[in-house]
Amino acid sequence: MKVLAILLAALVLVTSAASRQGTTPNIKEVFIGRCWDYQEIRYNTILPIEPKNCSHLWDLFFKAFSYHAPCDVRQANYDQYLQEAKQSLPANKAMFWSGIYNLAHQFSDNGINYVTLEDTLIGYLANSLTWCGQENYPGMNFSACPTWTDCPLEASESFWSGASTTFAASAIGPVVLMVDGSNPNKPAYRRDSFFGKYELSGLNVSKVPSVHVIVTHALGAAKLEVCGNGTLVTLQNDVEARGMTYTCDDNPDSVMYLLCAEKPDCRECKLAKALASGQLSYNSSVITPDYIMG
Amino acid sequence: MKVLAILLAALVLVTSAASRQGTTPNIKEVFIGRCWDYQEIRYNTILPIEPKNCSHLWDLFFKAFSYHAPCDVRQANYDQYLQEAKQSLPANKAMFWSGIYNLAHQFSDNGINYVTLEDTLIGYLANSLTWCGQENYPGMNFSACPTWTDCPLEASESFWSGASTTFAASAIGPVVLMVDGSNPNKPAYRRDSFFGKYELSGLNVSKVPSVHVIVTHALGAAKLEVCGNGTLVTLQNDVEARGMTYTCDDNPDSVMYLLCAEKPDCRECKLAKALASGQLSYNSSVITPDYIMG
Repeated sequence: MKVLAILLAALVLVTSAASRQGTTPNIKEVFIGRCWDYQEIRYNTILPIEPKNCSHLWDLFFKAFSYHAPCDVRQANYDQYLQEAKQSLPANKAMFWSGIYNLAHQFSDNGINYVTLEDTLIGYLANSLTWCGQENYPGMNFSACPTWTDCPLEASESFWSGASTTFAASAIGPVVLMVDGSNPNKPAYRRDSFFGKYELSGLNVSKVPSVHVIVTHALGAAKLEVCGNGTLVTLQNDVEARGMTYTCDDNPDSVMYLLCAEKPDCRECKLAKALASGQLSYNSSVITPDYIMG
Repeated sequence: MKVLAILLAALVLVTSAASRQGTTPNIKEVFIGRCWDYQEIRYNTILPIEPKNCSHLWDLFFKAFSYHAPCDVRQANYDQYLQEAKQSLPANKAMFWSGIYNLAHQFSDNGINYVTLEDTLIGYLANSLTWCGQENYPGMNFSACPTWTDCPLEASESFWSGASTTFAASAIGPVVLMVDGSNPNKPAYRRDSFFGKYELSGLNVSKVPSVHVIVTHALGAAKLEVCGNGTLVTLQNDVEARGMTYTCDDNPDSVMYLLCAEKPDCRECKLAKALASGQLSYNSSVITPDYIMG
């Protein structure tokens, strides 16, 4: 999914680094190395590991797009690979994100707090890679790949739509979705986002009773959308229409502290520090006692 | 049959638990995959990348310990590998840690805020791997490796002491050291830690003017050592004896917020949240105005 952000950013900037857009050099070595690393080390104490043959996974992945023209790849091409690479998820841990990458991954903490698509083998292997096919040997184009907007929609989204659908279908128990309520260029919820198109519809409602939405607001930025207004009303309707319970929280404490860790000089963060260090006294009549003491 | 199945399952469990202590399976694929991943993707926008031949690096690394008895490996064995794999560090970014791993790496944020040994190619490639040699083919022992305490000191530390020394020697500009001031089992500073033995002495004082120490205190835990007392006095003396300036900070804001993000229900964190949400008023006469407003 990070690759989407990178490609969109490249498009906006009208990138000059054309050569960076070809298939990632040494993609086979990276893919197979990540696959063993994932299973043997990175996630072997965090997620249930179902041993996979990494060379076989590469063969299936490579087969999906190699020796095809770059835009001639449908989601179905990846079906066999996704079927082979998919894994069981621990219950109550699945987390989705839309429009916000870094904070979402700090929050999920590499599968320790929550499991995102990028913490699954499918997402981990492909994250930040670029790849595309060509009809001639070696079947991959290392000099230039089209951007997502150059290809018909299905080809552009063929891998990540399948990966998102597979991930959503594996979720068990309540799930979390993090969205950005402070982005002036993008609503917090969009039906044409990956979450809106593939993940919400991919959830198995017999196994997922509820969706808990976390709306984040950058420190010092306008709160353009909060729980209960704007596109979050649409989101609530869409979640409930699928028969799941919807809950929503604006910048919960744990998210606020992650934001403060990056910008400790923001006013709300400095106040917190002053209080903790005893420089500040509080007016007990204003406080809900069990909030403070509880 | 059910009994047999249980016995076989137990056997498999015992076997796999023991084999986890041998050389990491597929270590060559993991090493080479990480090496390309590091250069092409993970750190290619964060650190200056000096292209390396990953297969050649593996050959040098493998040569250092393979076909030797597991405890028969001196630091000098790794010299050629370390020389080939070492890289230039960006100025003012080097960060050391001692006795505290997770928080230090959340703080450094994969090279974005600071660069730790584990963000350099040398540390990234070896992090969390297990390896040891044997005299017979294939030169590595995949069933059991000695623990550090089983080998003479030099063999135990042979790789990481060389890696730490190489990292310290590459630092340019002021450096940061994070230590734990709340561990009842381990002083914040120990002269026999990797920092004390290899890194402090490895710093090039003509390029590194100062060491800034961050002493962390787990929320709710006793502050066993703070700047200016305990082993931190020894640390100050050792830093100054090498001709560098010493500064020290107890749980600076950005660290406090990382701690609060993990434990938002701690008292000091809840107070902060109440204040930010307007549930709390403050007594302006108590506050240092420029602390709050500045």
